Amino acid sequence: MEQTPINEDSPSVSKKAAMKQEKLRRRQEQQALAAASRSLAVDDELDQLAANYGEFPLQSKTVENVSRRTQVAALTNALENCSVRIRGKAHTIRVVGKNMAFVVVRESWFTVQCVATVQPDTVSRQMVKYVAGLSRESVIDVEGLVSIPSVEIKGTTQQVEIQVRKLYCVSRAPVLSFNIEDAARSDAEIEKALQAGEKLVRVNQDTRLNNRDIDLRTQANQGIFSIQSEVGNIFRGFLLSEGFREIHTPKLIEGSSEGGAAVFTLDYKGQPACLAQSPQLHKQMAICGEFRGVFEIGPVFRGEDSNTHRHLCEFTGLDVEMEIDLHYSEVMDIVARLFVTIFGTLNKTCQKELEAVGRQYPFEPLKYLPETLRLTFEEGAQMLKDAGDEVDPMGDLNTEAERKLGQLVLEKYGTEFYILHRYPLAVRPFYTMPCHDNPAYSNSFDVFIRGEEIISGAQREHRPELLEKRAQACGIELKTISTYIDAIRNGVTLHGGFGAGLERVVMLFLGLDNIRKTSLFPRDPRRLAP
Amino acid sequence: MEQTPINEDSPSVSKKAAMKQEKLRRRQEQQALAAASRSLAVDDELDQLAANYGEFPLQSKTVENVSRRTQVAALTNALENCSVRIRGKAHTIRVVGKNMAFVVVRESWFTVQCVATVQPDTVSRQMVKYVAGLSRESVIDVEGLVSIPSVEIKGTTQQVEIQVRKLYCVSRAPVLSFNIEDAARSDAEIEKALQAGEKLVRVNQDTRLNNRDIDLRTQANQGIFSIQSEVGNIFRGFLLSEGFREIHTPKLIEGSSEGGAAVFTLDYKGQPACLAQSPQLHKQMAICGEFRGVFEIGPVFRGEDSNTHRHLCEFTGLDVEMEIDLHYSEVMDIVARLFVTIFGTLNKTCQKELEAVGRQYPFEPLKYLPETLRLTFEEGAQMLKDAGDEVDPMGDLNTEAERKLGQLVLEKYGTEFYILHRYPLAVRPFYTMPCHDNPAYSNSFDVFIRGEEIISGAQREHRPELLEKRAQACGIELKTISTYIDAIRNGVTLHGGFGAGLERVVMLFLGLDNIRKTSLFPRDPRRLAP
Repeated sequence: MEQTPINEDSPSVSKKAAMKQEKLRRRQEQQALAAASRSLAVDDELDQLAANYGEFPLQSKTVENVSRRTQVAALTNALENCSVRIRGKAHTIRVVGKNMAFVVVRESWFTVQCVATVQPDTVSRQMVKYVAGLSRESVIDVEGLVSIPSVEIKGTTQQVEIQVRKLYCVSRAPVLSFNIEDAARSDAEIEKALQAGEKLVRVNQDTRLNNRDIDLRTQANQGIFSIQSEVGNIFRGFLLSEGFREIHTPKLIEGSSEGGAAVFTLDYKGQPACLAQSPQLHKQMAICGEFRGVFEIGPVFRGEDSNTHRHLCEFTGLDVEMEIDLHYSEVMDIVARLFVTIFGTLNKTCQKELEAVGRQYPFEPLKYLPETLRLTFEEGAQMLKDAGDEVDPMGDLNTEAERKLGQLVLEKYGTEFYILHRYPLAVRPFYTMPCHDNPAYSNSFDVFIRGEEIISGAQREHRPELLEKRAQACGIELKTISTYIDAIRNGVTLHGGFGAGLERVVMLFLGLDNIRKTSLFPRDPRRLAP
Repeated sequence: MEQTPINEDSPSVSKKAAMKQEKLRRRQEQQALAAASRSLAVDDELDQLAANYGEFPLQSKTVENVSRRTQVAALTNALENCSVRIRGKAHTIRVVGKNMAFVVVRESWFTVQCVATVQPDTVSRQMVKYVAGLSRESVIDVEGLVSIPSVEIKGTTQQVEIQVRKLYCVSRAPVLSFNIEDAARSDAEIEKALQAGEKLVRVNQDTRLNNRDIDLRTQANQGIFSIQSEVGNIFRGFLLSEGFREIHTPKLIEGSSEGGAAVFTLDYKGQPACLAQSPQLHKQMAICGEFRGVFEIGPVFRGEDSNTHRHLCEFTGLDVEMEIDLHYSEVMDIVARLFVTIFGTLNKTCQKELEAVGRQYPFEPLKYLPETLRLTFEEGAQMLKDAGDEVDPMGDLNTEAERKLGQLVLEKYGTEFYILHRYPLAVRPFYTMPCHDNPAYSNSFDVFIRGEEIISGAQREHRPELLEKRAQACGIELKTISTYIDAIRNGVTLHGGFGAGLERVVMLFLGLDNIRKTSLFPRDPRRLAP
């Protein structure tokens, strides 16, 4: 099992130092909050304007005279002098003197500056004090007039201001484990500041993942998960348009689907059960049931103890299975067209998201060809040999060899996306069909992005006797897969398919260094929360 | 726990009798096969035309001179005298005399008759014998000329014939546990035949599910799972167009997501873990992370011992969570528009599939209004009271009361799809927000189709102290949901959402009597296979 260390994105700051730094910052922030509130001490006199601020009614009370809400993104010059209501997080709060408070309100990607100035009939000194006493990341409702400032506003996406009339707190945040700005900083910025003698906070990966609800608020993360959503959407759209149907196969199964690798086991009403390591057997059974082409997007479970940058114990499988007419190249045709469609569509429709990710985690756009390159395993092995590497001609490529081959392919063919097919049979799962001309090879393939494997696929063995023999040779108890073998025995046409991991596709397309960055709530051998 | 018996769709035939009948049929079929082969005994002379039939090369050998494959669906008069190649299941095989065999080839929904007649240069007597020796449901490749018969062909969808030139077997089926025609028969047909003194085979539900790969080949099942695929597609398309993002939350979690109901537990690397009973806590955490609206289609796991027609231990959840501006009615707005879109689109785009299902399982199209009816729980309870039923005003409705209310609503409002909201708080999960004007009620709702509950939804409590108090009152150990409570504490806007079960939506839209009919490979307390 591969055991390269988990890539931590804070190599230059130790965990302990980071925690100390964080504690210090939290204390400072709490003190600043208290001081701001004290300095604005006002008489306890009755505030005639008290209705203009305070706690927001939470419980779906129909609120009289509440205006329609405007999205922060929609706040443009065209709304000058209009009264608007917005809602968002208090991104920053700054008090100037005793009569004025600035609040930058953030709603998803967008930010706008709101100014509360003491004025008769609208804003009281008590209200400014109330604003000053709010904590960052609290959710607030702001009503006010849109104005256009004479100078550019730095640090907000919207170039209008809101002159606050009313302000209500929907949800009060405590001082958080880290600030969004700190979490949103690129390594380059931190290094640059360090060279200029300034020490910026770096939020390390475990802190981020322990507080994923905060971490997700950065623009890079908003971008990553919009792209993840879009990959699923393009994947399905393409396959539906090709006549495939979406299926949902059970995750609770009798036996392990792949054999070998560790599985999670549990008790199912007194019967031993496993969590499916892939929808392999059931998607094939759907083909036995005359579903001519099927796909599934769903969780797959791997009990392996792999603490690497690219393994998870639970990830989102992108699975496809289809009838083959004559040759397994038909499956590779689908793979090639599908992924070229995914890459092309993302580059076209996710510009904003790609830029947001790139600002924090710079990457080069993926190089790929309109016609996907296909090499045989033998050709790939030869390329490595020619470059002076030792390769077992009947073994698998290890991670290092895969990366090296990716480099050689890029140099020779100018692509970071290619298919390697006709793998040695010995290194493939039991349900793989051997080649017609040499049973030591198989009708199988892997697909690579930036030198890392993202897809495995093959034509399936559907001669029941051979299937049983191969399963046994792989150490699989036949009785745990008897319903699968029976389905194959009941008559099935030539078929094949492939599986990919959604998180890995997104990670490699974006050139990210760790799969935990593309899993919403990652699960690895050490992490079961949040 | 509800314990109405599993609805068996073979009430008039006992299990034992059915098995006996099946055994008899299998033996008869095997004998017939052998007899057909014997009667066609031909000399062992060398067949000059042997290349025109036999076993198909399976292993992705590039086959020389293989023509492009035509889909059975595409076989029309326009192709008269054209040479075509088709592939499909041998739906029926019939031998006439010694020189002729008829094979009906089925490809998914479509069937065509192929005729092999002894002819010099193409079809030998040995070839007819070979065809006669094939078993039903074997996969075959047929090449031949398209001809137009002078009389209508009964029992096939295509009204052309194929004059066979070549025929190869891709996969040989044994005599199966049941025939597709038997599995495809409606109860009405069986009853009608019985009244005419003819006893037709009825395939009971367990036999079907034990051999799901065969059962799935019926037109009704092809229709059901095409509709299921389409429901997912419409669900996602609608939500994406409303700005929602698709997420994938972990199924392996620390604590139970709902409390109360039984969960599946397992060992996760030495740590106790559960299978998520819903993505509830994590979809809310995504909202905490400023995903403004999210949805998920994924498996949910229920360890309950419910052996009913509408419970499964694993089903496909359709989950939504979203920001609320002012009122939980915003969530009901989405539910109403989403489901009206689903129903309308299905009725428009799935005509063929709906008809196929209706032929075997007759049903009335769902009655629903363009503007979905909303009643409060109190109004619903009053309707039941007015009709003479006893209702606990602060309890939940039981299945019987729900069905009765559905009937009353249909009579009064003419709809089988409606929303019941403002449920008593006591019968809702801990994360439900109480009503602003009466804490005994809650900002929650259920949605019904044909008198059965399919959706539960609500605004969520996001005041951390109250949330903790309610969780404890529901018997949930706080430490198992601490990361969830922390996320809520970190500041979140008003939000709410809902969850439905895909299998139940399809079942109730189609008026089916058992949820096992709409689950590809169902899991219930007694079934973990296939």
